[in-house]
Amino acid sequence: MAEFNLIEIIKQHTRQTRADVRIGIGDDAAVVCVPLGHELVVCTDTLVSGVHFPVATDAADIGWKSLAVNLSDLAAMGATPAWATLAMTLPTADAQFVEYFAKGFAELAATYELDLIGGDTTRGPLSITVTTHGLVPNGKAIQRRGANVGDAVYATGTLGDAAGGLRILQSTDMDARNVSTLAQTLIARLNRPIPRVDAGIALLDLASACIDISDGLLADLGHVAASSSAGIEIGEDCLPLSTAMAESFNAETCRELQICGGDDYELAFTIAETNVEAMRGAMEKLGCRVSRIGRVIEEAGVHVLDRNGQRRPTTDKGWDHFK
Amino acid sequence: MAEFNLIEIIKQHTRQTRADVRIGIGDDAAVVCVPLGHELVVCTDTLVSGVHFPVATDAADIGWKSLAVNLSDLAAMGATPAWATLAMTLPTADAQFVEYFAKGFAELAATYELDLIGGDTTRGPLSITVTTHGLVPNGKAIQRRGANVGDAVYATGTLGDAAGGLRILQSTDMDARNVSTLAQTLIARLNRPIPRVDAGIALLDLASACIDISDGLLADLGHVAASSSAGIEIGEDCLPLSTAMAESFNAETCRELQICGGDDYELAFTIAETNVEAMRGAMEKLGCRVSRIGRVIEEAGVHVLDRNGQRRPTTDKGWDHFK
Repeated sequence: MAEFNLIEIIKQHTRQTRADVRIGIGDDAAVVCVPLGHELVVCTDTLVSGVHFPVATDAADIGWKSLAVNLSDLAAMGATPAWATLAMTLPTADAQFVEYFAKGFAELAATYELDLIGGDTTRGPLSITVTTHGLVPNGKAIQRRGANVGDAVYATGTLGDAAGGLRILQSTDMDARNVSTLAQTLIARLNRPIPRVDAGIALLDLASACIDISDGLLADLGHVAASSSAGIEIGEDCLPLSTAMAESFNAETCRELQICGGDDYELAFTIAETNVEAMRGAMEKLGCRVSRIGRVIEEAGVHVLDRNGQRRPTTDKGWDHFK
Repeated sequence: MAEFNLIEIIKQHTRQTRADVRIGIGDDAAVVCVPLGHELVVCTDTLVSGVHFPVATDAADIGWKSLAVNLSDLAAMGATPAWATLAMTLPTADAQFVEYFAKGFAELAATYELDLIGGDTTRGPLSITVTTHGLVPNGKAIQRRGANVGDAVYATGTLGDAAGGLRILQSTDMDARNVSTLAQTLIARLNRPIPRVDAGIALLDLASACIDISDGLLADLGHVAASSSAGIEIGEDCLPLSTAMAESFNAETCRELQICGGDDYELAFTIAETNVEAMRGAMEKLGCRVSRIGRVIEEAGVHVLDRNGQRRPTTDKGWDHFK
């Protein structure tokens, strides 16, 4: 099957309805209009089979996740998603894989009224690169570098679930469909992360810095701290834990996965105390759980405090793609 | 070596100087400003080792080519390049490869004042996905679908050179550096294609349709014809041939490579007779060779005429990535 047939399958199953797309899929390039008063936010992420998702992952889940990890980056900037391009490298021209992939991708795209505007299909070992484009009011994008000493540090949702899901998949020969409901909840967090797009938009004008937690809380807060020329102290007992995690792993493992596990796609952000109440109100409206997990300090680095307020020895590493 | 060190190497060797980049490499996403009166042009292309370039290709050439094939798509729309993101999948964290790659990429980027604004580095089989962003005055982008019956068909530069270079590389055990000067010229067309950016911009308001020749002249003109609900007739003796090709291959092979070979990254465009003189003047100023190769007809398909004006039997295929 030729490249053009695959593109046709992708096109059929994805969304192309935005009025601001002047030329969509099917020309040498797409042409879109950025509305007045807005800046363009761009990010790109690659998922490689066996590295970023288990080889046996469903095509629809890969489609969902390849978009989700990108939207999570847009969320961290407070951007509203608009358009995406999709570069798909496949070992064979597998029409069924492409169809399921496109359906998973489209399901998430529809939530945010995001259009697929172009891409490329090539032959090679399975990997997916999505580039997403979002919009943010001029000058408003939330950066990593804005944290101020004294700010509170918050995280959305619960932490460690996806890493818990991965651990379950790796420690069992069972098919994902046959594991317990608890385990399925965690595996779903791994395969179908829900990017915090609405929360990110709500943080515009409120958060001083923001990042999405993809490589692990410690590593990602490390980027915020370093970019802001500050440090961060977090309390390990403050880290939000899901029931599924608490019932699946012992306390020690939970803590390790919350602090160092990757693939959370929650937001970690810093915020001035004066904005906390407004932020809590906005998050409550969205039904988005937020937890105060620490504070910004002068001393460089990210420091984890135990329940007695003592610093734990930690490495500064989350998930390194080249480990 | 960690992902962040590789990004640092890429950052050091590439261009980040545009005033319209509000947030560049180093945050969750980049933020850029699209100027008033302009639309955003977006395209993405993946190069896979062993598929889109020979495994032994120099890292600097891969860097150059990964950007060039994208800029060629922008050129076909008449867009002015502005920004790019780079997603790099590498088997190992090879700092030297990344450095040479970045240098090749940067060399071409500098020609067009294009900034690298973000990307991703991942572990896996070698492949590169670049997404480029260009700018075009509102409503002016040249599409594939604008060809009108009676328009002339032109091509820039010479055709078949890159396919000739590939054939030389595939038919010899010799190192590319040891082959003749003629062969080197053709191999350079394969490894360091020069996208027709300035020619594309000059075609705004002049060409009725345009495409870049990446999959082969016949296949790519086929897209123009189908998109325009028309047909195209080309004369095989009108196809521009380089001296290097004429001296390296017999006439039959030259013709085959000109018509079906991929990787030319020249522009093929259709143009009303009334605009031809202005176009020729503009191309002469740019020092860009153009050749009239055919005309737009009513009958669907792309038809190749021999020197006696007789149609040759052809397949409609250029280079299919999934063959």
